[in-house]
Amino acid sequence: MSETISPLAPADIPKLPEISGVTCRIAQARYKEWDRCDLTYIELNEGTSVAGVLTQSKCPSTEVEWCRKALPGGKARALVVNAGNANAFTGARGMEAVQRILSLSSSHLGCTEEEIFVSSTGVIGEPLPKDRAEAGLKAAFTAKPCSWEEAAATIMTTDTFPKMATTSAIVDGKTVYLNGIVKGSGMIAPDMATMLGYIFTDATVDAGVLQEMLNAATAKSFNCITVDSDTSTSDTVLAFATGQHDTPALTSFEDAGADAFQAALSDLCMQLAHLVVRDGEGASKFIEIAVTGAQSDDSAKRIALSIANSPLVKTAIAGEDANWGRVVMAVGKAGEPADRDKLSIGFGGIMVARDGLVVPDYDEAPVAEHLKGDVIDISVDIGIGNGKATVWTCDLTHGYISINADYRS
Amino acid sequence: MSETISPLAPADIPKLPEISGVTCRIAQARYKEWDRCDLTYIELNEGTSVAGVLTQSKCPSTEVEWCRKALPGGKARALVVNAGNANAFTGARGMEAVQRILSLSSSHLGCTEEEIFVSSTGVIGEPLPKDRAEAGLKAAFTAKPCSWEEAAATIMTTDTFPKMATTSAIVDGKTVYLNGIVKGSGMIAPDMATMLGYIFTDATVDAGVLQEMLNAATAKSFNCITVDSDTSTSDTVLAFATGQHDTPALTSFEDAGADAFQAALSDLCMQLAHLVVRDGEGASKFIEIAVTGAQSDDSAKRIALSIANSPLVKTAIAGEDANWGRVVMAVGKAGEPADRDKLSIGFGGIMVARDGLVVPDYDEAPVAEHLKGDVIDISVDIGIGNGKATVWTCDLTHGYISINADYRS
Repeated sequence: MSETISPLAPADIPKLPEISGVTCRIAQARYKEWDRCDLTYIELNEGTSVAGVLTQSKCPSTEVEWCRKALPGGKARALVVNAGNANAFTGARGMEAVQRILSLSSSHLGCTEEEIFVSSTGVIGEPLPKDRAEAGLKAAFTAKPCSWEEAAATIMTTDTFPKMATTSAIVDGKTVYLNGIVKGSGMIAPDMATMLGYIFTDATVDAGVLQEMLNAATAKSFNCITVDSDTSTSDTVLAFATGQHDTPALTSFEDAGADAFQAALSDLCMQLAHLVVRDGEGASKFIEIAVTGAQSDDSAKRIALSIANSPLVKTAIAGEDANWGRVVMAVGKAGEPADRDKLSIGFGGIMVARDGLVVPDYDEAPVAEHLKGDVIDISVDIGIGNGKATVWTCDLTHGYISINADYRS
Repeated sequence: MSETISPLAPADIPKLPEISGVTCRIAQARYKEWDRCDLTYIELNEGTSVAGVLTQSKCPSTEVEWCRKALPGGKARALVVNAGNANAFTGARGMEAVQRILSLSSSHLGCTEEEIFVSSTGVIGEPLPKDRAEAGLKAAFTAKPCSWEEAAATIMTTDTFPKMATTSAIVDGKTVYLNGIVKGSGMIAPDMATMLGYIFTDATVDAGVLQEMLNAATAKSFNCITVDSDTSTSDTVLAFATGQHDTPALTSFEDAGADAFQAALSDLCMQLAHLVVRDGEGASKFIEIAVTGAQSDDSAKRIALSIANSPLVKTAIAGEDANWGRVVMAVGKAGEPADRDKLSIGFGGIMVARDGLVVPDYDEAPVAEHLKGDVIDISVDIGIGNGKATVWTCDLTHGYISINADYRS
């Protein structure tokens, strides 16, 4: 946790409603030498369905491997999140701590181990100390329930503010609620990076449908953000539906309310993903990059990410420089179909270059004004097709260097 | 040009021998408001053969497009390099200046336009001012010949020191010479980036053979370096063989001396490529990353570049932190075949992790000592095959941010 809150943090922390069937508790496991809670234990009502999206890293953490194994069961009773130690690249010793968490939690709840989900985030390469995990978890079992904000704060590592969002959907004429908490904020890249995100709803949703809905929602949110192009070994997004609301179960996309629920889930994922970017390490500007006119949507996304991951584009924005030349460079290096002489680029809705040339009467003043703000819009039209995509990132500043040349993650 | 010379600059600037058939001249075209020479004109003897490797950017500069068109001719009489303006993304107006350079130079030398090679480097998006190009070029025609060092300095942009190297080869019992000059130093990534490199030899080499040799040499040198993962619209490496030495022509790889010449060319490219990394923007450490045990050489190279391009690895090295966890992350995100539990990682020849675990008796002291130096070796064994590759990069520091948040490139 940093002393300084990101300048891009929202002014207000939203108030999250209770979600029936979800109880959050926190404890001090002391995974690091710090005086804060670092273990989050979230109990879920019997009958909770679960879906998840996990890192595509070829070197995933033990916890990610466990979640991948447990997800097909589709049922969840608890989530345990450890902050301060990622337990990644720790081989058999890392599994010992996870195994202990699984045993303790499943005994405590009288459920199978496959209904317990575990994440860890922090230093890579040091086994999670199993005795601390055990003591912390036992303390959490008996702790009094905590607020959503306390849970969101307890999963943080280098994050500078707790990240949470809420939304709702009308299913069968009744309102169901969706809450989410998430942590960043380095190693953020498509396929999610060291990002842990958890979504809870009181709706009743079949695990298979929830999985498809989560896939659709993450594709356009968590998988469209990048802070530094680095993908973590641990990234995880899990969605839990407790089924504690007296609405009919969503068992297919054809069910009444399924569209509304999908829209709410997508909106929640987008809110959470944007919060992660807003807490990007060292970020001073929130950048939206919208690419249109590409050969396909996939091509547009690759071009958009090439721009979003370019250190030269990101430093230009940090310097409040509408350096569209670097945007051209990033389009060029993406390797996707493009025609230099059909390319158009705008900042803050003002066209800077059109059809491969600077706009003749280009007035830099309003663009410079836009660049001084903290939300920067870059639009790029490739001019050869109908593919489009939008991604989000932040600028690259001295703050990023300071954080990462010191902190051992 | 920066006020501060890179701490990684070589202590001595090498003395380059004359290359018969090559005459360098420089002039002030004033492409920017500065008081330095910024136009380099290098005249080549009749009969000079040429080969080249050009950016793979989909938005290349006008100059790159011209070189691509002229290269199949295989003959060269002059090279013109403009510094301060990349003339990229300038459409038809950019071609006007290039056309004027081609006309003037070919008239001056009495040759075809296809024998004139042109590069420009600097700001993207502003057409190269054709009147300044003309005046500068005319001044260069009549200037007195300059030294290699002066030519190497004149092609510089954000470079902090002139980059040049020399080597020789024995062909038919006689010594032929190879000189090279190169400029960096941002937008450096595989496929070369804003890097302009020129190689000159007095040997007689058939253009087709020279091209194959240059391809082989760049694959393991210029295409194995990265500063910031950004690929420029303008990168160019050209090799000129004047044939002014009385050695037999190399017309195939089977000719006596061909192996020696290839070895010398590869060595020269490697020297030049390393100089570019040593002048990486903000660099304080030169990093060699050697990957072994991958499924194939290509796979090893992709893994090595994933490590070399990771901002988290690069900032860790800047912070003198042997953060092998971030190396694991970068291996994982490369998407190449890997098995976490077979991975081994060393710094400075000292194994830190073996078979997916920290080495049990790992002593951090000698590793920390190695990290304090300015040449850092990272070795990674994937443990699943025989593929190997080595790449070079530099660390990511506050200096990079300072340079790129201000300079409009």
